[in-house]
Amino acid sequence: MSSKRKKIKVGIVGATGYTGSELIRILIGHPDVSLEIVTSESKAGKEITDVHPQLRKMADIPLKSLSELQPEKLDVLFLALPHRVSMNFIAENTPLPCKVIDLSGDFRMNDVATYEKWYDVKHAVPDMVKTAAYGMPELFRDEILKADLIANPGCYPTTSILPLAPLVKDGLIEPNSVIVDAKSGITGAGAKAKDNTHFPNASDNFSAYGVKTHRHTPEIERTVLRFCNVDMSINFTPHLLPVNRGILATSYSQAKQGTNEKSVRDSLEKAYGDEYFIRLIDTPPEIRQVRGSNFCDIFATFDERTNRVITISVIDNLVKGAAGQAVQNMNLISGLPEASGLMTPPLSP
Amino acid sequence: MSSKRKKIKVGIVGATGYTGSELIRILIGHPDVSLEIVTSESKAGKEITDVHPQLRKMADIPLKSLSELQPEKLDVLFLALPHRVSMNFIAENTPLPCKVIDLSGDFRMNDVATYEKWYDVKHAVPDMVKTAAYGMPELFRDEILKADLIANPGCYPTTSILPLAPLVKDGLIEPNSVIVDAKSGITGAGAKAKDNTHFPNASDNFSAYGVKTHRHTPEIERTVLRFCNVDMSINFTPHLLPVNRGILATSYSQAKQGTNEKSVRDSLEKAYGDEYFIRLIDTPPEIRQVRGSNFCDIFATFDERTNRVITISVIDNLVKGAAGQAVQNMNLISGLPEASGLMTPPLSP
Amino acid sequence: MSSKRKKIKVGIVGATGYTGSELIRILIGHPDVSLEIVTSESKAGKEITDVHPQLRKMADIPLKSLSELQPEKLDVLFLALPHRVSMNFIAENTPLPCKVIDLSGDFRMNDVATYEKWYDVKHAVPDMVKTAAYGMPELFRDEILKADLIANPGCYPTTSILPLAPLVKDGLIEPNSVIVDAKSGITGAGAKAKDNTHFPNASDNFSAYGVKTHRHTPEIERTVLRFCNVDMSINFTPHLLPVNRGILATSYSQAKQGTNEKSVRDSLEKAYGDEYFIRLIDTPPEIRQVRGSNFCDIFATFDERTNRVITISVIDNLVKGAAGQAVQNMNLISGLPEASGLMTPPLSP
Amino acid sequence: MSSKRKKIKVGIVGATGYTGSELIRILIGHPDVSLEIVTSESKAGKEITDVHPQLRKMADIPLKSLSELQPEKLDVLFLALPHRVSMNFIAENTPLPCKVIDLSGDFRMNDVATYEKWYDVKHAVPDMVKTAAYGMPELFRDEILKADLIANPGCYPTTSILPLAPLVKDGLIEPNSVIVDAKSGITGAGAKAKDNTHFPNASDNFSAYGVKTHRHTPEIERTVLRFCNVDMSINFTPHLLPVNRGILATSYSQAKQGTNEKSVRDSLEKAYGDEYFIRLIDTPPEIRQVRGSNFCDIFATFDERTNRVITISVIDNLVKGAAGQAVQNMNLISGLPEASGLMTPPLSP
Repeated sequence: MSSKRKKIKVGIVGATGYTGSELIRILIGHPDVSLEIVTSESKAGKEITDVHPQLRKMADIPLKSLSELQPEKLDVLFLALPHRVSMNFIAENTPLPCKVIDLSGDFRMNDVATYEKWYDVKHAVPDMVKTAAYGMPELFRDEILKADLIANPGCYPTTSILPLAPLVKDGLIEPNSVIVDAKSGITGAGAKAKDNTHFPNASDNFSAYGVKTHRHTPEIERTVLRFCNVDMSINFTPHLLPVNRGILATSYSQAKQGTNEKSVRDSLEKAYGDEYFIRLIDTPPEIRQVRGSNFCDIFATFDERTNRVITISVIDNLVKGAAGQAVQNMNLISGLPEASGLMTPPLSP
Repeated sequence: MSSKRKKIKVGIVGATGYTGSELIRILIGHPDVSLEIVTSESKAGKEITDVHPQLRKMADIPLKSLSELQPEKLDVLFLALPHRVSMNFIAENTPLPCKVIDLSGDFRMNDVATYEKWYDVKHAVPDMVKTAAYGMPELFRDEILKADLIANPGCYPTTSILPLAPLVKDGLIEPNSVIVDAKSGITGAGAKAKDNTHFPNASDNFSAYGVKTHRHTPEIERTVLRFCNVDMSINFTPHLLPVNRGILATSYSQAKQGTNEKSVRDSLEKAYGDEYFIRLIDTPPEIRQVRGSNFCDIFATFDERTNRVITISVIDNLVKGAAGQAVQNMNLISGLPEASGLMTPPLSP
Repeated sequence: MSSKRKKIKVGIVGATGYTGSELIRILIGHPDVSLEIVTSESKAGKEITDVHPQLRKMADIPLKSLSELQPEKLDVLFLALPHRVSMNFIAENTPLPCKVIDLSGDFRMNDVATYEKWYDVKHAVPDMVKTAAYGMPELFRDEILKADLIANPGCYPTTSILPLAPLVKDGLIEPNSVIVDAKSGITGAGAKAKDNTHFPNASDNFSAYGVKTHRHTPEIERTVLRFCNVDMSINFTPHLLPVNRGILATSYSQAKQGTNEKSVRDSLEKAYGDEYFIRLIDTPPEIRQVRGSNFCDIFATFDERTNRVITISVIDNLVKGAAGQAVQNMNLISGLPEASGLMTPPLSP
Repeated sequence: MSSKRKKIKVGIVGATGYTGSELIRILIGHPDVSLEIVTSESKAGKEITDVHPQLRKMADIPLKSLSELQPEKLDVLFLALPHRVSMNFIAENTPLPCKVIDLSGDFRMNDVATYEKWYDVKHAVPDMVKTAAYGMPELFRDEILKADLIANPGCYPTTSILPLAPLVKDGLIEPNSVIVDAKSGITGAGAKAKDNTHFPNASDNFSAYGVKTHRHTPEIERTVLRFCNVDMSINFTPHLLPVNRGILATSYSQAKQGTNEKSVRDSLEKAYGDEYFIRLIDTPPEIRQVRGSNFCDIFATFDERTNRVITISVIDNLVKGAAGQAVQNMNLISGLPEASGLMTPPLSP
């Protein structure tokens, strides 16, 4: 009975971006959560419904300034802050007074040099880069349970790593042959209006960006290394889709000797057969199948003609790629069922 | 406690159209419902997830033939059938063995002649046209509670009637001056692929249809008459929007003597101040504010310059305009809170 | 033979907004035009293809500063400037050294008081408000031919006035009963990224704006008055469509005694039967039918049941609603066929 | 002077699909063409504007039955027919009475066995498979000039081959390492409404299809072989974009020893520096840059970190990917400038 369980006390720092607003959307319906505080420096003093009118009658939450935050009274604190701002917050709040789930990229790579090279900034709390867990429960459940700081994965890395990690670990593909061609909905570019997100520029359009240089490249490589101790050097190319939500990643890898259709499917079945949020399917997935949900749908196949393994995976970038996976992490460290509060069916169409 | 309440036994006839699939989406998350049977003549023998792959891991429901339906074992039966098919089903199942909520247009007008004129067909069970309740709880709660057959309102009429009915009843607008200019997302055209819903025809496009002849015209007129005994003769023009879900209706009416901004707002506040699913707002609403939810957001204003009252209202056509309002009716007649199972926040963006 | 005709020398002030870039798109293919200068204060020194990469290999035009403009060497100058900036430019360049076609709203209403009230600014050159022609050739050809300054019509007014003006002039509708419910693509909001044009806000969405207060309201009223000396007081409500280009306007008017289907159609046929850019059609038009072209498609019908006349008209807001009509005006005053350079078929889909 | 040149007499078989309607759109504005006959079996007896209302006032062309076609009176005949239907037409009209440009896939692979394997049908005129030219002027200008039958390239192959062919020919990439990840607008699926093109299914969605099995795979491989005698075995994966027009192809290839950024760019510059319709650019292209035009924009780069060459290319699938390239071929074999009738600027936005 939810009403008999003691509720988890949570706070959100940063309410106005898409990850913050998705956290609110999910948490106001979570049966075991008490949302104690939501902060926004730019909107402090307003109501959450002034910023997100769709939540009228559902969320009666005043937006507070960070100065009103008392993290020591919380069980879990979500940081929905930009890169760099997040690590400075952590630096100012060490030792952490409660469990922290950070949705920025600042603690995702357990290697300070790699971070500093790709993000072009000096890290503010290099020590914690090592101790932070990578918050992908399907691969790192034990580390997450032990950590004080959980680095919630990026949206592209979530979509890319989930299909690839078991195949690399089981030795089915050549790690240096991997190519990930990824396509993301425009919410991935953030809530702030920019030239490339102006409707007449984004609608009826499609293009690649960050070719050779996107920061999610090393996040994918480092995480696979961390998971199964195999070095990779991949090509990762993101593209901007004229849809709101959703990422689809298509990967191509050279098969190792002996790999076949069955071994590919067995590897994923072994890894994810018991994982609620991973749905292994027999046909290429569509992004609308997961819209609004925490599912990752994965299709994988072996092409005998070219000796390559192809995987196609989809997530909702704001849910499994951000706020949903963060809540999954919160559930995990709080002793709740991982799907608690995350059972809303995908909205399709 | 949901687990202690006895669950309502419900069935759905017609699972593959949009109204049927929305009923499933809502009911699988409803804490007080046991979904006993879902039928589909074209897909009987398959699983619901074969038709709606987004529901994998969420709905483990075999699709049955109508011959397997035992309505006498149900508390509530939803009919998600096309016009004409629905009245024939009712004709063959009279007297009704359980409460029936019909989502077609067959029982919405309590006047057989009007129905037969606009639908161009002889009604199969004219007697029941009179006894069926119009399933809009905000206006007809008492009738709904007493009825065996509930005619669930059309999507355009729901959007149009909710703002207009109180204004007509309170004598603020001239009933014969009303113009409703309505715009609907393409799911309103049904789940079957047609020329005008072919993506290259519908996308980046906009047009009116059913000018002077749409069947929701008399549904709006008859319902207002039924509600407050005032005859109306309106212009209703629907348009096809290149979006999936959502209806926005803009209405224009000549104000009666003495009408002003305050009297318009007071009339709606009096009618809906206590209604959870009606949100009265101070600025023109957007359809995405209600996407996936059972809300109807209403804005109304008086234009002193032209002496007209303008209302703008939005709903999700598949939820408050179909399946959600049907579940609201089910909750009402089952003694449950009307919002039970309907508390999922709108998905925006 | 185009090559034997002397080319018209034209200039464009303001190249980076949508009207400026559409002027360039049309004029680089115009057989009788020499595009002498294109200015942009923010991009002076760059090439036009730096701003509009789609024009590579088609337009080899450097962007100049306004200081390099020599209007006395031009035949026609187009002003694609914001409201207020435009009238200041005119104020500084009086008397005009060449024919000027102004695409802003500053000279469209031949009444200074009306302008100052709705635009909330003092007019810089009130004298020229009276002498400027309203650049809608179908209604004001003679005035345009005589004028030095042509005020190019607004996009909504073009869509609204063309169907209504003949009906008012011929006494078929009550002028004070007119309601125009208009829907525009998002390019109508300009080339600059704003919150309401951010793809995740505009896509899969629809809403009204400027209710009771949009500046195109008096432009419609004043222009009909100017055309046929009938005072109107209308309701005009614009809405934002999730498409790039196109406006559809639906109007509703009370019919006068004796009006019928035939008289409505005859009135439009008489007014526009010989106009190339007006296509009178028997079914409600779609906006994609005119995309990229200078056509205005008009449907009009009489509803006997309600005694109202309904018109539905569509244009491409950037062409007939801006740059295309401006070129039509240029052709007219230059003695060219009005369709010269405007014969590109609509792009559909 | 167009008016002094003798006009080419052309016919189109198949007017109602997208390739047929694009041919009409382009040819009615072509200064050197007389469109003698347009056929459609399903619409014979109607006007072209009954099927394509956007062309009203621009195309006054009756649709004829095939029985009225007299190919011996034409200079060039375009076949806009489905696969299989096209080769049967050729079989019945051998020897060809005029130059024929076939837009189907039936004559694109100069190897009957490959065709029959991937299209799963016996070829009706195997002899002509060998003699047909592959209608990509940039690579096969000489063959096209000599041929009686020109197989107009597929949309995906056009986008994929143009960037890859020079790189393979110049020995810069490993031919068996090539991966092409392609994304197409929905007009690529044809004009007929289908489940996967139903707006609510296609909009706000994205997915792969034809994984490992798409027929454009061997067309790409065979054409590169034909061009530079190098065998390739590639992975080609198409995806369905929620836009109307446009293809973007991203390719990844292992670089050969010595390849670098300069050699990649030089190779393309050498191949296409003088080609009007190829625009080599320094930044990743967007599909809207080419919308409605016959351009192919190509970006290519070398990734030192992974030793791979990445190319990104875009076309309008209905123009350079179908009707536009067909007209380019017509111009070529008729002694006209290749860009004649193809100079309309892209429509953006």
